[in-house]
Amino acid sequence: MVPPLRPARRASPGPPQPLLLGLLLLLLQLCRGLRAEDSSAMEEIATEKEAEESHRQDSVSLLTFILLLTLTILTIWLFKHRRVRFLHETGLAMIYGLIVGVILRYGIPATSGHDKSLSCSQEDRPFSTLLVNVSGKFFEYTLKGEISPGKINNVEQNDMLRKVTFDPEVFFNILLPPIIFHAGYSLKKRHFFRNLGSILAYAFLGTAVSCFIIGNLMYGVVKLMKLVGQLSDKFYYTDCLLFGAIISATDPVTVLAIFNELHADVDLYALLFGESVLNDAVAIVLSSSIVAYQPTGLNTHAFDAAAFFKSVGVFLGIFSGSFAMGAVTGVVTALVTKFTKLHCFPLLETALFFLMSWSTFLLAEACGFTGVVAVLFCGITQAHYTYNNLSVESRSRTKQLFEVLHFLAENFIFSYMGLALFTFQKHIFSPIFIIGAFIAIFLGRAAHIYPLSFFLNLGRRHKIGWNFQHMMMFSGLRGAMAFALAIRDTATYSHQMMFSTTLLIVFFTVWIIGGGTTPMLSWLNIRVGVQDPSEEDLNETRWRYFRVGVDPDQDPPPSNDSFQVLQGDGPDAARGNRTKQESAWIFRLWYSFDHNYLKPILTHSGPPLTTTLPAWCGLLARCLTSPQVYENQEQLRDEDSDFILNDGELTLTYGDSTITANGSSGSHTATTSLEGRRTKSSSEEALERDLGMGDHEVSSRGTRLVFPLEDNA
Amino acid sequence: MVPPLRPARRASPGPPQPLLLGLLLLLLQLCRGLRAEDSSAMEEIATEKEAEESHRQDSVSLLTFILLLTLTILTIWLFKHRRVRFLHETGLAMIYGLIVGVILRYGIPATSGHDKSLSCSQEDRPFSTLLVNVSGKFFEYTLKGEISPGKINNVEQNDMLRKVTFDPEVFFNILLPPIIFHAGYSLKKRHFFRNLGSILAYAFLGTAVSCFIIGNLMYGVVKLMKLVGQLSDKFYYTDCLLFGAIISATDPVTVLAIFNELHADVDLYALLFGESVLNDAVAIVLSSSIVAYQPTGLNTHAFDAAAFFKSVGVFLGIFSGSFAMGAVTGVVTALVTKFTKLHCFPLLETALFFLMSWSTFLLAEACGFTGVVAVLFCGITQAHYTYNNLSVESRSRTKQLFEVLHFLAENFIFSYMGLALFTFQKHIFSPIFIIGAFIAIFLGRAAHIYPLSFFLNLGRRHKIGWNFQHMMMFSGLRGAMAFALAIRDTATYSHQMMFSTTLLIVFFTVWIIGGGTTPMLSWLNIRVGVQDPSEEDLNETRWRYFRVGVDPDQDPPPSNDSFQVLQGDGPDAARGNRTKQESAWIFRLWYSFDHNYLKPILTHSGPPLTTTLPAWCGLLARCLTSPQVYENQEQLRDEDSDFILNDGELTLTYGDSTITANGSSGSHTATTSLEGRRTKSSSEEALERDLGMGDHEVSSRGTRLVFPLEDNA
Repeated sequence: MVPPLRPARRASPGPPQPLLLGLLLLLLQLCRGLRAEDSSAMEEIATEKEAEESHRQDSVSLLTFILLLTLTILTIWLFKHRRVRFLHETGLAMIYGLIVGVILRYGIPATSGHDKSLSCSQEDRPFSTLLVNVSGKFFEYTLKGEISPGKINNVEQNDMLRKVTFDPEVFFNILLPPIIFHAGYSLKKRHFFRNLGSILAYAFLGTAVSCFIIGNLMYGVVKLMKLVGQLSDKFYYTDCLLFGAIISATDPVTVLAIFNELHADVDLYALLFGESVLNDAVAIVLSSSIVAYQPTGLNTHAFDAAAFFKSVGVFLGIFSGSFAMGAVTGVVTALVTKFTKLHCFPLLETALFFLMSWSTFLLAEACGFTGVVAVLFCGITQAHYTYNNLSVESRSRTKQLFEVLHFLAENFIFSYMGLALFTFQKHIFSPIFIIGAFIAIFLGRAAHIYPLSFFLNLGRRHKIGWNFQHMMMFSGLRGAMAFALAIRDTATYSHQMMFSTTLLIVFFTVWIIGGGTTPMLSWLNIRVGVQDPSEEDLNETRWRYFRVGVDPDQDPPPSNDSFQVLQGDGPDAARGNRTKQESAWIFRLWYSFDHNYLKPILTHSGPPLTTTLPAWCGLLARCLTSPQVYENQEQLRDEDSDFILNDGELTLTYGDSTITANGSSGSHTATTSLEGRRTKSSSEEALERDLGMGDHEVSSRGTRLVFPLEDNA
Repeated sequence: MVPPLRPARRASPGPPQPLLLGLLLLLLQLCRGLRAEDSSAMEEIATEKEAEESHRQDSVSLLTFILLLTLTILTIWLFKHRRVRFLHETGLAMIYGLIVGVILRYGIPATSGHDKSLSCSQEDRPFSTLLVNVSGKFFEYTLKGEISPGKINNVEQNDMLRKVTFDPEVFFNILLPPIIFHAGYSLKKRHFFRNLGSILAYAFLGTAVSCFIIGNLMYGVVKLMKLVGQLSDKFYYTDCLLFGAIISATDPVTVLAIFNELHADVDLYALLFGESVLNDAVAIVLSSSIVAYQPTGLNTHAFDAAAFFKSVGVFLGIFSGSFAMGAVTGVVTALVTKFTKLHCFPLLETALFFLMSWSTFLLAEACGFTGVVAVLFCGITQAHYTYNNLSVESRSRTKQLFEVLHFLAENFIFSYMGLALFTFQKHIFSPIFIIGAFIAIFLGRAAHIYPLSFFLNLGRRHKIGWNFQHMMMFSGLRGAMAFALAIRDTATYSHQMMFSTTLLIVFFTVWIIGGGTTPMLSWLNIRVGVQDPSEEDLNETRWRYFRVGVDPDQDPPPSNDSFQVLQGDGPDAARGNRTKQESAWIFRLWYSFDHNYLKPILTHSGPPLTTTLPAWCGLLARCLTSPQVYENQEQLRDEDSDFILNDGELTLTYGDSTITANGSSGSHTATTSLEGRRTKSSSEEALERDLGMGDHEVSSRGTRLVFPLEDNA
């Protein structure tokens, strides 16, 4: 989150009226004959006026986006009010962006740019700053970038379009971090870790396979285009691979939102969400390593093994470095919140949490790693450890803070996408390439979902069924990450074509595929849970449950959380008894290490380190063990259950209650007191208990075969 | 909140290691003889590397600030933990800024800047952008600003110092708006409006008087300096007036924080807070109008009446324009939140609230007004109207959101102040000027506090006593606004001297005067209320009250709010019976207009517009009246009582409770139900009731003559 900073520059306070501005400029023209002081004063004024004008245009452009976001918010409310599901907020934001883009492009007359041509020969390389001598006064200029000769006359043609075009780094520095952090911070951790192996496989192997396949298919398409004479400029193999990496970043935000509302199967949700979150990270680093593939030697077409392994090294280095950064910051925050009494001061705690999470990003960027990947792992770490140390107030504050940042950033990006279709001045739409791309992404996704699922099912007890695989295949939406990666570098012909195609792919997948999610869920017979509050209940806190075969008079849970604690029975009750045979060995290993060592060090949970660490660590163990652990060995359970993603917004769809923000803590307490009655057990039993309990609590989501009632009503 | 945007520029993904960077640069030097393509590729790489390096330095500089803020937060916690009151968080932030500034200035060796000198004659005026021809390729440069000839060699001397030096507009566009908005949004409205006349007098007349007196005194000082030979360059009368305007912006954040903690007299709090908030606005616009004072004609020393009146016109125009912008946005938000059911969706509501408040700023800036002033009035309007329409969840969310933004921005500015003492490279410290400035601000404040209080007391029933006046005189701390105004333009000798002096004044007033607040309160015998929770009660929600002459067994109030509802008796009970004679006629006029028309239009409160509006507005009245009004005519009171500033943080100093964030609503409900039992009455009685009730509830603050117990313990 690094806004592009510039060193100090002069700016005039108290901008006068535009009419005055015009008069001053006119005066400037007339006063060229005045003595040097006056003309320099005029020049100062002119410079300041230009700065003012530029500032004003910046304000107007930001206002445009705020208008877009406001319209989007109001329409989202309207859609929720009327329970429209075919169009999600991101698709909506894009539509509004499109509309405003059309208006800006065709509605507003192009204003002529400032006079600015200067021919000035320089040394062999451009400098980052220039000192220019103007009538004895020196002015400083900073390098903005290169302009291709053909575009020189076009550059200033439309000021307004330029003003609403952001530096692509804004996406990576300001907009994507909150989105990615929130994704990490709100992972449903239990289901995430339970499906960890599959998620990692899909994210890493799947993305690599997808990238490779799409890259090769696109290379074929490009060759075809060259044959047919449709290719105007160079299009390398590495460009195709880059396109493959970019377009492999999935972002099924629409699908996941619908899954949430309808309470579709939690494993499917976890697989999709986990895959999308991690493959964003993989895609970024993969694209960086592909760009870093610089074959030496004169023949750039031959495969350079050294450069290839260097790229692989870059990938591993950047990924693990970013991972380390994120984890370290999360750990530091956990320690700080554990050993201070900051939880008495939610404002301080929230501010510290925010700063530390932001610092992850900056630290990673400063060290040459990828900030976005670092904040992802920081978010996961914070959710896993730090969250438990925060006071109840701070938990809701941090969740809400990042939730609103995420919301604004995401809708901003999607609005910008719609806008970019018209404001981006270097689009290159090539039908063959576009059709080829659609086919390629379809094949690429099929080529990694089905084979990987097959291999994973060999090891999983709870298989990923065909309908799940089809759903995952279907849910390959592209979104913010693909867009940001594509727009990052649009200097060359190939990159511009890739960007234009990516934009179209995002539009199509978000609108068409996103809109088809609900029908597809029923068509594939994927189980969903459902609530159906009637309109008049909207402001009450009562629930009405309609479930096939479920007692409708069953009391709602004590909190406003949308889960029912059902007694498990039926075909999936076995899931409630998922035992240690189910979980992968590596997961069990991780879990016991985490439960016995990491959690006690970083949070207030037990078992006390004095019992688990060897004797020679005694002193260290005593320092690190929180006094609370001794008092509350039974009561302090892992509070980070599935409820960490408290759909505060969804819950409030059905009722406005003052304790909703703490509803999660209510259910935590329920969980806590329930589990507190059990006897102390080993970590294996703890694992079993966690998995079993978790399943009991959330099995309601997929226990009954229920069709979404809204379709029948 | 407009970050300085730049149109798209190329940036390379996947920054390689610094070693690689060095190698590449070396390669660049060696490869100058290669063919054009290769050298252009090298140039591209070099440009990208420079951009990378610049980005990395930006990250490091932001990290420095995050480190500062983190240290500040941890130390604030420590101070609160040990109840240290002599050093407030802002003073602490400055100290850390100083320390880091010393390290950066003297600890880090100066790195040599990039080669960048180019002599290139140009037209009579500098252009905003340049196209520079480098070996056939064109690069675009943007104008950054003017460099005075003597500084050319110094400009790049210390890269690091430059990197931590922000564009002054960052303060006005990013940092000050949240601070000012929060000030407006958290005004204790009842006491603010009760003392409205006095506050307006202090803010407008007082600032103008102060500016004038300080300006003239400083002009005398400047003349003295010229006589003594201490003045190296021009120092105009307008510069002195500008200094007067800048330094008249008070910011008694330390004093107010202590007032809050000790629960000092609410009227004094309201007077100080209201004055500081409004005089910030006045100071900005005043400084703009002084800068806009451009006397025509050759004799710039004669008084130009036309230019003077133009300046006055600019002042009035900008102020009223900004006021209108802020009020309009607040009204629009109120209407939107009233007529939609957005309150079902706190996330949407909060996001919309945030966007609308931000749009105020941009709108004002785009129209040529002052964004900061607009957000102030927007905040006040939002607190007065929109707040009532928000759901309970949204109220706490918005308060918390702006609270954390305010906290971070304020401490950032104060850290930066400390840093700026060492990183700013153009300081000019002149002992005569500095001493003269201290004397001038002392006299300037005396010259407006005492005479104005005298005149105000002629009209007030509840006089502003001598001790209050002394306290107000004492509480003339300078802070963020004065600093931001001073740093805005440091191009000339006079401005640099003014900036350096302002910095010293801020340091002195925040540390010395801020630290002396608590002793001064007791010395002046200003009444405070107090709680004294014992350490072990810190995490409980019980209170222990120690009051001279008060029954210690009295039950605490039902909410966690820190007020006691005492039965009024003693010398100030008369305040509880403040009747309509007390309030100024204009206030009563405003109140009845607000109560009868504005509130019903913009919120859900009664009385119904169908009763108050004339018959021909019947249709409009029916549209605008909320159905809730008919149902709940007695229950829906103005919920915006004094408790809108719910010191969530301070309350939690004494207890961590999950409903603290809604504690205010708890007390609202108490108020509501109490008042609901009264019969329907006219607005006059409503006014009386509001004032009287308010007094009853908060008279505890000043009812008993109690010395701060901490001093005696």
